[in-house]
Amino acid sequence: MGSGIHLRRYRVKEGSKVRLSDWKTDDTLGFDGKKEDGTRLLASSARKIDELQELLYAEHRHRLLVVLQGMDSSGKDGTIRRVFFGVNPEGVRVAHFGRPSVEEAAHDYLWRAHRQTPETGEIVIFNRSHYESVLVERVHGLVQEKVWRKRYAQINDFERMLSEEGTQILKFFLYIDKDEQAKRFQDRLKDSTKHWKFSYLDYNERRFWKDYMAAYEEAVAQTSTEAAPWYVVPSDHPWFRDLVVSQVVLEALKGFGMRYPKLDAVKARLATESGPPGPHKHP
Amino acid sequence: MGSGIHLRRYRVKEGSKVRLSDWKTDDTLGFDGKKEDGTRLLASSARKIDELQELLYAEHRHRLLVVLQGMDSSGKDGTIRRVFFGVNPEGVRVAHFGRPSVEEAAHDYLWRAHRQTPETGEIVIFNRSHYESVLVERVHGLVQEKVWRKRYAQINDFERMLSEEGTQILKFFLYIDKDEQAKRFQDRLKDSTKHWKFSYLDYNERRFWKDYMAAYEEAVAQTSTEAAPWYVVPSDHPWFRDLVVSQVVLEALKGFGMRYPKLDAVKARLATESGPPGPHKHP
Repeated sequence: MGSGIHLRRYRVKEGSKVRLSDWKTDDTLGFDGKKEDGTRLLASSARKIDELQELLYAEHRHRLLVVLQGMDSSGKDGTIRRVFFGVNPEGVRVAHFGRPSVEEAAHDYLWRAHRQTPETGEIVIFNRSHYESVLVERVHGLVQEKVWRKRYAQINDFERMLSEEGTQILKFFLYIDKDEQAKRFQDRLKDSTKHWKFSYLDYNERRFWKDYMAAYEEAVAQTSTEAAPWYVVPSDHPWFRDLVVSQVVLEALKGFGMRYPKLDAVKARLATESGPPGPHKHP
Repeated sequence: MGSGIHLRRYRVKEGSKVRLSDWKTDDTLGFDGKKEDGTRLLASSARKIDELQELLYAEHRHRLLVVLQGMDSSGKDGTIRRVFFGVNPEGVRVAHFGRPSVEEAAHDYLWRAHRQTPETGEIVIFNRSHYESVLVERVHGLVQEKVWRKRYAQINDFERMLSEEGTQILKFFLYIDKDEQAKRFQDRLKDSTKHWKFSYLDYNERRFWKDYMAAYEEAVAQTSTEAAPWYVVPSDHPWFRDLVVSQVVLEALKGFGMRYPKLDAVKARLATESGPPGPHKHP
């Protein structure tokens, strides 16, 4: 994979058994370097991701969907911020999946996810996702087991369709330790500019930690596929978490083997467009 | 306004007559400094915009809508890229208004704009906007004069409502010279990584330059209001264009007088939330 980082170590093979206790939340062994090296690599990777994002848009053939899941304070926001630092905001869109609106709740659980999938040439990041429907809904018994158990296959079918139609999907479970979470919550309480991030309700969710881990374990095992692999990312060390996500995203973009379209292709595209006065004009 | 930049110079006062020929497309007189000073100020402003964006989200009281209009190659994309360089992609969303979809075209012209307006705590940038309906649609006679002429008042009503309901609106016309556009088109043809940006149809629009300028002149004059002012930004020099937009955005964010919410406020907010298990969970 280059760069002295061993990404396969964190990738869940399709059909493999997953025991989260086999992973360490503070592991950094996948990288042959220190924190400073990692931070440097992250910064240069962000610049490369920016370049490839422009190419992604220019070539207009691929779509990239990045799914981020993890317990509160596992660092979903921080990861987005640093992995995509300096990337053109026109090419990256973040979709949040919080409490569903009345309209969303009136549909099946994949409806609102489907609406937010990337267009051609676009990178979309799901901050939480359709996976909440086999996580929080399972843990709190909001739906019956016979309902959520069918969802693994439904999700695999949905993601396979997206993949076959041209969307590359990458899924990350940001894996932190329960004590590390407690520490991060306390840090939020100590810093008055972080109070807005603190929620007693989130704190309360700690009582269900074991249930969440069981739900993640099964979700990751059941839905890691060749088309849409899961990465279990050790996330106690934010720099390492950011680095792993960044390298997986970068490798995926490189893997597209993209090239800038030639003028001939531009001419051909224009020839198939109908109606005045131009590609960005009203009909 | 501080920083040695005189933003009022470019702001169109409500009810004033506008003659675009009074503005110079290569003016840089509004800034007491050289290009290097401007570039430095732009970079430090982007960092401040990033900080204030986090505060905007944390405080959750205001919304900011930035409208960018201008002829092809006037630099809408470049402006977004540099004014918001390094700003958290979670807090900034770009909405494009290209050729309407069948669904969009089946509604009035404000429908698709309304759907894309910012949520509380969010910055949204319109890359083109509802103004295309008094620009391209007028220039190409896609609607009758009696139709587009009513739209100025409709747009003012719409924007006043948005403003009264808590959305700050800033509108920028990126003003370039016709010869400068020709130069930029030629540059795109010389650079094979820029060919995808080139469109013969865009080139063809140059025949309507005068009509577009008349349409912009009237649109800006009719719809620059206290609630939603227009800035005519000299844009032949990209560094100056970026600087003006950046300083107006920064001043607007500062003008909100925002503060991080206290823990008491967070508690109060949570007390009004109903239903388990948390603010970002399914119902």
